[in-house]
Amino acid sequence: MAQDATKPIVERYLEDFVVGQTFTSGRARVTQQEIQAFAAEFDPQPFHVDPEAAAKSHFGGLCASGWHTGAACMRQLIERRMALRDAMLAQGLTPPAMGSSPGFTDLVWHKPVYAGDTVSFASTLVSKRPSASRPRWGLIFSRNMGTNQKGELVYSFVGSVFIERRPS
Amino acid sequence: MAQDATKPIVERYLEDFVVGQTFTSGRARVTQQEIQAFAAEFDPQPFHVDPEAAAKSHFGGLCASGWHTGAACMRQLIERRMALRDAMLAQGLTPPAMGSSPGFTDLVWHKPVYAGDTVSFASTLVSKRPSASRPRWGLIFSRNMGTNQKGELVYSFVGSVFIERRPS
Repeated sequence: MAQDATKPIVERYLEDFVVGQTFTSGRARVTQQEIQAFAAEFDPQPFHVDPEAAAKSHFGGLCASGWHTGAACMRQLIERRMALRDAMLAQGLTPPAMGSSPGFTDLVWHKPVYAGDTVSFASTLVSKRPSASRPRWGLIFSRNMGTNQKGELVYSFVGSVFIERRPS
Repeated sequence: MAQDATKPIVERYLEDFVVGQTFTSGRARVTQQEIQAFAAEFDPQPFHVDPEAAAKSHFGGLCASGWHTGAACMRQLIERRMALRDAMLAQGLTPPAMGSSPGFTDLVWHKPVYAGDTVSFASTLVSKRPSASRPRWGLIFSRNMGTNQKGELVYSFVGSVFIERRPS
């Protein structure tokens, strides 16, 4: 993901994040082979590993484990964060430390992700606040969404992540 | 997972599930190699892929992507469901269809899962109800928990899954 090094970095500290802002974070094509490999290791239900059984199931075709879709979304979110870090470093800025996530809520598998589907990810900032327990940190809450090539929402959840506060 | 074919099958239809009941569903040892392979594909943050960077991070050591822990838990849950199916087939019973999951909520990463940790999974039935939209089906809601070898809760969420109702 190429970054324009002359573009100002907007999301550096908790104070820089704007509630309501949405960013898109790449897209992932999920192949039959990837679906079967992930499912064989982590979620070997017939509709995730066996195309014939999947065709006869209520899904009507081979589709990704929800955990696979979630992991593919994580990949896109992390790539964006890493690209932002690289852009800061290219401008001689010190990137803030990467925070961990305490968890998330309201995860919904809206539609199956079928073999060959392409899922685009986007993230809308829902709220933010200083951390009660960690003075150097704040928390942001984002609604993360995956949409397939037909424009159908396939996946959403509200994630939280620790973000450094601007040094005073 | 060996099943005693003479043991009665208790969880067949929605009506058979008892709120408050807890079952354990196996354990997974998460190795450094597995952590790095999963993270390289889905969550390439330094503390998931690079032992030296992880040692310097707030985690203090290489630890699994949360999505990896979640997927490992899914594997344990599915193995248990499949063992129940096999036990029903061995008794000449027709297993109910396997339902999909509409999603889950309240996921918390309580503690890091470090390389070499062993996580045991358990699941407590929180509530159940008939589906409003699908008359043949009900929904069960379970609090799923992962606990490490020190007895520390590392991971929990409340998952939901469609379960067939007893044919009338």
